[in-house]
Amino acid sequence: MRHHPARLIAHKRDGGELSRDEIYDLISGVVDGSLGDVQLGAWLMAVCMSGMTVQETASLTLAMRDAGTVFDLRHLKQPKIDKHSTGGVGDKVSLLLAPMVAASGILVPMISGRGLGHTGGTIDKLEAIPGYRTNLSSAEFTSVLAQCGYVMSAATFDSAPADRRMYAARDISGTVESIPLITASILSKKLVAGSDGLVMDVKQGRAAFLKRAEDAEQLRESLVAIGKITGLRVSCWITDMDHPCGRGIGNALEIAEVIAALNGDGPSDLLELSLVLGADMLQLAGIETGRSSARSLLEKLLKDGVVKQVFRHNLELQGGDPRIVDEPDRLGRAKFVVPVLAANNGYVVDIDPLVIGNVITDLGGGRRKLSDTIDPLVGIVLAKEVGDPAAAGEVLAHVHASSQADADLVLLRVRAAIRVGDTRRCRQLILARPD
Amino acid sequence: MRHHPARLIAHKRDGGELSRDEIYDLISGVVDGSLGDVQLGAWLMAVCMSGMTVQETASLTLAMRDAGTVFDLRHLKQPKIDKHSTGGVGDKVSLLLAPMVAASGILVPMISGRGLGHTGGTIDKLEAIPGYRTNLSSAEFTSVLAQCGYVMSAATFDSAPADRRMYAARDISGTVESIPLITASILSKKLVAGSDGLVMDVKQGRAAFLKRAEDAEQLRESLVAIGKITGLRVSCWITDMDHPCGRGIGNALEIAEVIAALNGDGPSDLLELSLVLGADMLQLAGIETGRSSARSLLEKLLKDGVVKQVFRHNLELQGGDPRIVDEPDRLGRAKFVVPVLAANNGYVVDIDPLVIGNVITDLGGGRRKLSDTIDPLVGIVLAKEVGDPAAAGEVLAHVHASSQADADLVLLRVRAAIRVGDTRRCRQLILARPD
Repeated sequence: MRHHPARLIAHKRDGGELSRDEIYDLISGVVDGSLGDVQLGAWLMAVCMSGMTVQETASLTLAMRDAGTVFDLRHLKQPKIDKHSTGGVGDKVSLLLAPMVAASGILVPMISGRGLGHTGGTIDKLEAIPGYRTNLSSAEFTSVLAQCGYVMSAATFDSAPADRRMYAARDISGTVESIPLITASILSKKLVAGSDGLVMDVKQGRAAFLKRAEDAEQLRESLVAIGKITGLRVSCWITDMDHPCGRGIGNALEIAEVIAALNGDGPSDLLELSLVLGADMLQLAGIETGRSSARSLLEKLLKDGVVKQVFRHNLELQGGDPRIVDEPDRLGRAKFVVPVLAANNGYVVDIDPLVIGNVITDLGGGRRKLSDTIDPLVGIVLAKEVGDPAAAGEVLAHVHASSQADADLVLLRVRAAIRVGDTRRCRQLILARPD
Repeated sequence: MRHHPARLIAHKRDGGELSRDEIYDLISGVVDGSLGDVQLGAWLMAVCMSGMTVQETASLTLAMRDAGTVFDLRHLKQPKIDKHSTGGVGDKVSLLLAPMVAASGILVPMISGRGLGHTGGTIDKLEAIPGYRTNLSSAEFTSVLAQCGYVMSAATFDSAPADRRMYAARDISGTVESIPLITASILSKKLVAGSDGLVMDVKQGRAAFLKRAEDAEQLRESLVAIGKITGLRVSCWITDMDHPCGRGIGNALEIAEVIAALNGDGPSDLLELSLVLGADMLQLAGIETGRSSARSLLEKLLKDGVVKQVFRHNLELQGGDPRIVDEPDRLGRAKFVVPVLAANNGYVVDIDPLVIGNVITDLGGGRRKLSDTIDPLVGIVLAKEVGDPAAAGEVLAHVHASSQADADLVLLRVRAAIRVGDTRRCRQLILARPD
């Protein structure tokens, strides 16, 4: 580093603003290790607590982009639109939406993450598909994208070296909840992947890492503002994560649910979110100008089996077994599938996604730390949604576990998480549309 | 660690209070390494920015004390009183005061630090004495103390393991300026050394690390309050560090100045501070109840050569060459001694200690980082004090350097640091007395 790290950190601690040059220097220190771990932790905490100006966040985003290889997709002439979610429980929207949007002629270059804590990750879900490769080289990434219209890969050592170190550091040091750090982490990776536009799904609720409406709104404003400065059109939604998304939660169970949706049999919230966000991607690309015509186009592509075709093509290109599309049993099944029964009559008034997410981690389907390995087969399949009537003794959900003991340990918690009450309630899926 | 580190760190980030058990757990993590560097940096910054309650700071102090070996001095029946300064430029008060107070029958067990940046350190000064050993075992520490009445040693691996790691981490991560961290660092080491009471000299001014009166006052209150809870009587002074202390600055030059003072020829500020703080130690020990009688006793011991005798005895016990007391030339002398001349007539109106301190670091007499080695012979000897008249061409100071080039490089800066102006000013040495 050219600057004295302690001085830059102390300046941020005291609420000062760092210059573009100073931020680039810090990120070079993150990448080459000349910013030590103690300093990284102190800097991240100072940013967490002092915040960053819009200009600083933009500089951080660009510095993180420029720290590694940036994919050059300029030879591909179609519009390139990405979608990203801040994560939650059961959120498999990307897996359905990407082939849907690709089927309409847009390129969807996706760099995705792994799950941590109660939150699932797209890469983990994809790895539940036998053979599927998520560590693509930059050449493979571009080639898959050009051939089938979308590609899904993990961040590699080359492409996002600063984010890799910062993400791991934030996870262990209480510095996750920072709007500027989240913004830069998301947008830098999208810029690396060569997108022109981004449809963002900011999750809000108990199982989102932003629990309060004002925080979600703040992140939305930050993403749009920094996108504007760094040259990425961002359209940002805020959607519900006070309930799980869909009915299948757990890596292989979520892939199975996506396949069901491709075959016309998916849960309504998954379908709705995919259509709403997908239609927005079409509008952002300029392919459709009206929201309803964009939605109709996607519905038609899904109904006609074109989306399924694109999905299968992607599996072939990324090494996944394409037979799972027609034979989802090939994904495998946990050894023990145990029903959770309702204790009383009424309506399902609440399904706590935080409990569900933590139960899945306890079953071995999630990570407590980044180095944990996971069991793709375990999870929960909900038999009821919020608003559904339930009778005592009726099945509320099935727990998929690798041992009876594991299942027994979580049954009561799952039953308590699916609350049956007297008053019928319904759930609001979309909390805020883009401006 | 028994607690989840990220959770404790995030709680402090959000302004929460940690329990005694949680703080002990964090310090166990600091010592056994289960609190990683990223986490240590983030935690220190969160403390810096969120602060700590009195109860938390007391718990931190006790946890740091209990993390290593605590010296047991209970078999020594005399009162045990320590003195500590927050550090500055030319501050060699401890070196004169310790034998002075020991001569009166009090035991002075001192664990001291090294210099960093523009600030000198007692251990570095002592190591300018040929043969002097500062890395005493706990048995040697007690034995020297019992035999000559005072002992000076560096913190060892055993006795303050948490402070060692935290001090090094704070230095590089912009987390030095924290009242609770400073309080715990100072008091934990004093508790380890087995003192009953502590006379504290909080420095304030340009070359102190607390520059503003309100910060010095805050540290004073914190030291007294935490001392009370942890069982250490603390009497705290605030004194001037807007000017260097004494005339000789640089490790061997400061030892020479102490020897001059022992021989009745020291600078007035060094003598005054030693008498004032020393008299307070006598009062704290209950040996003298009146301030002026305590001072008179010390003056007499100094005049009668008893203090010099104790100093010489300590040199003999800690391996230093006792002949330096009568032949200070044995300390050695830098190869190049170059005068700095006044450019105009008037009075010395300012001597900037920060410039002086940094010049000494540049000459090789200080450290930029903890692992740097230092040249004990380089430094500056002031020929004038603030308030003295100066004529153009008169010597303001001598630079002691290991090469002519080194001396040339700093001459102009030293001249600019010793400002000659028209109006005669004088300096206030004591800024605040104990309540």
